[in-house]
Formats: sequence, C-alpha cells, structure tokens
Amino acid sequence: MVLGKVVGTIVCSSKNDSMDGARYLLVEKTNQYGEKNGDFLVALDMLGTGPDELVMITEGSPSRETPLTTNKPCDALIVGIVDVIDETDRILYRK
Amino acid sequence: MVLGKVVGTIVCSSKNDSMDGARYLLVEKTNQYGEKNGDFLVALDMLGTGPDELVMITEGSPSRETPLTTNKPCDALIVGIVDVIDETDRILYRK
Amino acid sequence: MVLGKVVGTIVCSSKNDSMDGARYLLVEKTNQYGEKNGDFLVALDMLGTGPDELVMITEGSPSRETPLTTNKPCDALIVGIVDVIDETDRILYRK
Amino acid sequence: MVLGKVVGTIVCSSKNDSMDGARYLLVEKTNQYGEKNGDFLVALDMLGTGPDELVMITEGSPSRETPLTTNKPCDALIVGIVDVIDETDRILYRK
Amino acid sequence: MVLGKVVGTIVCSSKNDSMDGARYLLVEKTNQYGEKNGDFLVALDMLGTGPDELVMITEGSPSRETPLTTNKPCDALIVGIVDVIDETDRILYRK
Repeated sequence: MVLGKVVGTIVCSSKNDSMDGARYLLVEKTNQYGEKNGDFLVALDMLGTGPDELVMITEGSPSRETPLTTNKPCDALIVGIVDVIDETDRILYRK
Repeated sequence: MVLGKVVGTIVCSSKNDSMDGARYLLVEKTNQYGEKNGDFLVALDMLGTGPDELVMITEGSPSRETPLTTNKPCDALIVGIVDVIDETDRILYRK
Repeated sequence: MVLGKVVGTIVCSSKNDSMDGARYLLVEKTNQYGEKNGDFLVALDMLGTGPDELVMITEGSPSRETPLTTNKPCDALIVGIVDVIDETDRILYRK
Repeated sequence: MVLGKVVGTIVCSSKNDSMDGARYLLVEKTNQYGEKNGDFLVALDMLGTGPDELVMITEGSPSRETPLTTNKPCDALIVGIVDVIDETDRILYRK
Repeated sequence: MVLGKVVGTIVCSSKNDSMDGARYLLVEKTNQYGEKNGDFLVALDMLGTGPDELVMITEGSPSRETPLTTNKPCDALIVGIVDVIDETDRILYRK
C-alpha cells in the first residue's frame, strides 16, 4: 500500500464502470511524514475521506476485493485513513 | 487510475485478442491540470472518446472487468471522460 | 498496452512453463513514432512477428487471457502488429 | 519479491478491508546488503516482525494468497524474515 | 518477462507462504547482452539455476501459474534459463 493526501475530486461522465455512487478522489502521494511528493493518482473512495487527510491506498488487482468494487474496473482504492505513523520511539505523523 | 489525453489512434492487424470492434487509442498521461507529460500508453476505448479529451484510465488486471473485456488480453481501459477536477476551493480542470 | 519493436529472439532451456511451442522475442519499447528508447522486455509471440515490426504488448495478468497462455506464467504478450498510428490530421507511423 | 527493513507502524481508522487484527508496517526498501534506499511502502505483517528486521515482501495480487488475506484489498505482504543473503562465496547480510 | 543473472541466495525464517522446499534467489536485472544494471529482485527458483546464469523472470500474478506456486504469495518466478539471445544476424548472448 502507498500513502497519499487527498487534494481534489474528479467528476466524470460517460463512465462505463457501473459504480454510479462512487467518488473518485485526486490523491498526491506522500512520504512517511505526510509530505507530498508531486506524484498523483486517482483513487476510489468509500470512506468519506475529507480534503488533506492522509490515506492508505491499495493499487492494482487487490483494489477489487470489496463488496462495492467486485468485478469493477477499479485499480486504486482508499483502504484506510491514517491516524498515526510512528517509528520505534518517535511519532512521524499524527492526524 | 491515471489521467491522460487522447492524442491518436492505433490501427492493428494480426490481432489475437478477438476484440475486432475495439478501438485502441494513443493516450498521453497528464497531471491534474490536464497538462501532458510526455509519457504514452495505448488504451482500449469503448466510450467514443474524441481527440484531446481528458480521460481516466484503469491499468492492469482490473481493466478486464467489463462485459467486452472479460477474458481478453487488455491491460489499459478508458473508464471515464473527465468533466471537472477541483481542489477544495478551486477548479483545476474543466472540460 | 505499450508499443515496441522486435529486435531479437530468446532461446531458453529448462523452461518450466510448458509452452514448448512458444517463441520468446526480445522487444525494445518505442514512442508513438516507432523510435526505440533503450528499454527492453521479453514478450511471448503467437502472431509470427518479424524482425523490426512495431507491435502492441499487453503486460501483467491480462497476458494470460488467450487459449495458449491460459494458466501459464507469462507476463508479456504481443497482441497486435501495428499498421498505422495517427493523430487527428497526421500520420505518426506507417508500417 | 523485494527486500526492506521495518521502520515503523501505521495506525488506521475507518478501514474498509475487514482485517481488524492486521498490522500495517512502514517498510523502507533496501539493497542486497540491507542498506535502506529511501523508498517506502506499507506492508501487511502476520509474522510478528520487529523493528529494523530485514524482510521479504510480495507485492500485488499474489499478496492475497494467504488464509488471512484472501479476498482482502491488500497489495503488499511480508512473506519472510531474512536470516542470510549470500553470494557464491561471501555473506552479504546476516541477521 | 525480464532478464537477470543469479547473484546470490536468500535464507528466510518465519515464512508464511508454505513453500518450504522453495529456494529464493537474489537476481540482478541485465540488459540484452547479459550485462547487470544494479537493479535487484528476489525470485523463486524451481529449475536448479546456478550462480551467474542468465535467466528469464516472470513477475506479478502470472508467477503463480505453476503447480508449486498455485495459491502462493509469490510475485517473481524464474521461468527459463537463457541459452542464446540473437538479433537478426548477430549473437548478443550465448551461455
């Protein structure tokens, strides 16, 4: 999984993926401190993620492994909202 | 999913994928403002996408998850035509 | 899918993929003009592709979606021989 | 598979992957000597890996091939804790 | 598939992949002349590959498509030992 911050929303027409209730978010990848690195992707959101929240994203085929995304052409899914990232004795990121 | 703009069409012979009605488009990847970045791929189109339209592309195994692409050797599919990309309070791209 | 030109042939022994009739070709990736970029991969060929032909290659799991490659450890397949690549009003490549 | 060292722990809320007992670790990729290279990913751990241990990580769809991760949106899994890496006549890394 | 040379062996404990007889090899990727390029991966070997042999590696989900790796979390498999790589009229590599 990779880390990223939600930076925007994508509105699509002519979708052929039959997930009309789905929300596509523009996500910028980050390092372990939550600092953005300029690399973007579009991920499906089913958690109600808000702007600038740090999220964990599953890419590729495993992103279909939820009830909503089964048999859908989705290759990036937000699977968790990050609360804390810590090293052995130090907090790297806190929500 | 990644963002890209349609820049051309690919005509193939000797296809072995049995999708004779399929249309392969040459797509150049873009950033979130719809600006092209010089990175190309070939994606299957089933939406009737026109030249220079900004599209959302699913890559890899999930691109087979449509009725037409089931059990076909397709690894990139146009899944939506982008209308609007916005940040919290600002439009980044409008069709 | 990506574009590439056939530049050589790979002869293997001790294969464990049970595709004894298969032909592995050395392919150099190209841009949309058919110009090689120095990035190589090995792809399975079932189309009788000749040297220096421009081909379209499917990578990853979808490359198993043909009768010959079903349930085989193949991650790159030549799916078409390119005849023409054109932009709106201009031919980029012709065989 | 790739090599990496465990450098931290990720705590998530609002997970939609139904693996409530799972532990997500922050892993920094390494070369064959166990030297970190600045490239991070988040991997699921089911082995009780400790901080700074060198691990082997499976990425993508195959990371679902364990009893716990079957049908879960997991795309990176720690599959082994490395004891020794050796070249023909030389130890590159020892735990 | 990609090309690589076997440069070492990985010994793991605490494996959770239930392939106790499997051998993990450290492989350095090469170009078409068999010259190493500094990029490493760990691949499963079932062919008895020896040190410094040039091999062909399948990555990702298709690497599970052998009797031993079915339903196992393996994402890189040695599928052949390369004997010869040739261009139209020239041998690039010979074992």
